[in-house]
Amino acid sequence: MTDETEIYRKQGFAQAVGLGPRPGLLIVDFVIGFTDPAHFGGGNIAPAIDKTVSLLGFARAAGWPVAHTRVVYADDGSDAGAFTTKVPSLLKLTETSALSQIVPELTPSAGEHIIRKRQASAFFATDLAAWLTYRGVDTLLVTGCTTSGCVRASVNDAVAHNFRTVVVTDCVGDRAIGPHEANLFDMGQKYADLRTSDEIIRHYRQASAA
Amino acid sequence: MTDETEIYRKQGFAQAVGLGPRPGLLIVDFVIGFTDPAHFGGGNIAPAIDKTVSLLGFARAAGWPVAHTRVVYADDGSDAGAFTTKVPSLLKLTETSALSQIVPELTPSAGEHIIRKRQASAFFATDLAAWLTYRGVDTLLVTGCTTSGCVRASVNDAVAHNFRTVVVTDCVGDRAIGPHEANLFDMGQKYADLRTSDEIIRHYRQASAA
Amino acid sequence: MTDETEIYRKQGFAQAVGLGPRPGLLIVDFVIGFTDPAHFGGGNIAPAIDKTVSLLGFARAAGWPVAHTRVVYADDGSDAGAFTTKVPSLLKLTETSALSQIVPELTPSAGEHIIRKRQASAFFATDLAAWLTYRGVDTLLVTGCTTSGCVRASVNDAVAHNFRTVVVTDCVGDRAIGPHEANLFDMGQKYADLRTSDEIIRHYRQASAA
Amino acid sequence: MTDETEIYRKQGFAQAVGLGPRPGLLIVDFVIGFTDPAHFGGGNIAPAIDKTVSLLGFARAAGWPVAHTRVVYADDGSDAGAFTTKVPSLLKLTETSALSQIVPELTPSAGEHIIRKRQASAFFATDLAAWLTYRGVDTLLVTGCTTSGCVRASVNDAVAHNFRTVVVTDCVGDRAIGPHEANLFDMGQKYADLRTSDEIIRHYRQASAA
Repeated sequence: MTDETEIYRKQGFAQAVGLGPRPGLLIVDFVIGFTDPAHFGGGNIAPAIDKTVSLLGFARAAGWPVAHTRVVYADDGSDAGAFTTKVPSLLKLTETSALSQIVPELTPSAGEHIIRKRQASAFFATDLAAWLTYRGVDTLLVTGCTTSGCVRASVNDAVAHNFRTVVVTDCVGDRAIGPHEANLFDMGQKYADLRTSDEIIRHYRQASAA
Repeated sequence: MTDETEIYRKQGFAQAVGLGPRPGLLIVDFVIGFTDPAHFGGGNIAPAIDKTVSLLGFARAAGWPVAHTRVVYADDGSDAGAFTTKVPSLLKLTETSALSQIVPELTPSAGEHIIRKRQASAFFATDLAAWLTYRGVDTLLVTGCTTSGCVRASVNDAVAHNFRTVVVTDCVGDRAIGPHEANLFDMGQKYADLRTSDEIIRHYRQASAA
Repeated sequence: MTDETEIYRKQGFAQAVGLGPRPGLLIVDFVIGFTDPAHFGGGNIAPAIDKTVSLLGFARAAGWPVAHTRVVYADDGSDAGAFTTKVPSLLKLTETSALSQIVPELTPSAGEHIIRKRQASAFFATDLAAWLTYRGVDTLLVTGCTTSGCVRASVNDAVAHNFRTVVVTDCVGDRAIGPHEANLFDMGQKYADLRTSDEIIRHYRQASAA
Repeated sequence: MTDETEIYRKQGFAQAVGLGPRPGLLIVDFVIGFTDPAHFGGGNIAPAIDKTVSLLGFARAAGWPVAHTRVVYADDGSDAGAFTTKVPSLLKLTETSALSQIVPELTPSAGEHIIRKRQASAFFATDLAAWLTYRGVDTLLVTGCTTSGCVRASVNDAVAHNFRTVVVTDCVGDRAIGPHEANLFDMGQKYADLRTSDEIIRHYRQASAA
């Protein structure tokens, strides 16, 4: 997207937001149903989970606030709406459905926030922004899936709620690579910094050593 | 995106939401600054404005609720935040700046809602959802710019607020065509129906004749 | 409050909002813990539940959308915050706690929305507004407890979300009668109509007969 | 309210939230129209403004974030809704109306946030929570009017957004004293600490000296 990058550059987009001193980690929808191409998964989601396992380990050692999301609808479909009209298969994701359980390698620890959501954004109709505010988070590191869906929507809202927002590029994945890349472009130009998990770990390791 | 479409099809995406009986029209950020490539404009924004003029005329004749958005920051920058850190040039859009004035051919009429916003989404920190609810709107027709920015963010929120959401494909535009098309794909698969203004006008003309 | 009523009258408060054609019923926090004076209950909550049983029966027969709320915190206290700092005993209300179960006589039916909340308002960080919007509700009838707490906060938000709001005076209760009455006064002056369940049932019975 | 206080005490209410290290000051609706008993004013609003002048001076010297609110409706009434149906006289408060101008002695300085709102709460459909989050505020000191209206609604939302919330008792006022006192009771029991401006100034003077 060379020409497009140039258009954005001339208009003043894509400045760095940086990594602030009080990070938090958001893990979006890394649940069973999004690892399986027969349901909502596929693409590069599996390697993104692997990388997130490492970043989560670092976050826990550093004591960062960590939030996980799951998509959860009521068993009786009483909370269906516009989104499930567009994508009816979402209604299979219920509290006890195997599909909506967080993948075992990312099982939440005590004190980590587990957010049940019905919309793409981790912030919509949830207390995520308030939860992060209470913990003094100034920078939100976003991982999860899918890049073009719930990650993108969550990044949009993270910025709107005034968190410096960083997409961890090797910790987000999507069922199809074209939308993955297109959305990384959009987010990097307009909303968030794009950084690898290694860069982030190195930064905070150095910061805490200093 | 043939292969990608097939992946989404197998997973149950892209069902039709349809055109409900009580539509409303949202016109996102068709302001001077987004028509000028030296600021935030370019690409296919100009023809999208032309088409929106026609659709707005139809909406007014039909008595639909109409809302317009402008990006407006305080003169003293007191409301800067994460978004303007990423895109500092946004801060030029102030109440009296020429750049943030709605284009003359879409000048709001009395009773139309003019929303001042600081974030990408027309819904974030505004009363748009409540305004539409009060007027009984069940279907939101979204026009404006840019497709990959404020339109996309507004569509995400429109669905989350449970409005049937339709992107009017010839009435949305972007500074660069790659992101325009990539975001139409995402929205059409996951959140909204994609319809031309002619299809929409024909539908409601027939519905009111019936 | 004769003098006070006169002050409000002169300033133009307390106009009627009326009963619209598409009502919905909200039942706030009628859970075991709020029926027991040893926990959060007492006062006139028990008779308010009795009256709500009748109104709920009418609502179901009429096919109105019905939403119930419960206060639910995580077992590990990971979602504690400013509210639970002020009132730490709230943290006893967990998903499986006896205290946070809806009272048996108001057990939700299939299709009714059960909202888990952590704050006073039934709307805060929940999808209640979007759920009502999707169902076309224009008038929200509010019952539950406590009048001076979660009912008041929910009424404030119901009005802000642009629903005509009616407090069903014999279907709301509080642990102490002074705050109950003071909050009915505030809500009746500024936000909502005050009507008994008999008046409401009579109104809609006549409306459907007409 | 001795008996009532005892009921609340037994149920575990009214713990202290305390004064955190990063305070912000919110001044709610101290505008001309709320100083005049012929419009929305009267009662003890005038002395509350006097006391707020002193606290604002201290806040500015200390460099705290400060936000002011005004109620502002569109000139053409296009943003009327449920609240203005209940209190139609609110629609007189427009951008240029004398009634909706902040009182001269509290004129905002550069960098202070001026929030236009249409609902009781300073947080509803505004970016106040995000603005405070971006500035790292952990404790919100609430002043303004009316205690039983916009102050109460703002305090409810401040707590929900997870700010430690303190009502500055001598800096809030109301058109009638009964509702003023009843709402101080409710807020002190359930949501916020009640402190005088002198106590707050003394606390932060000592904290900064330490």
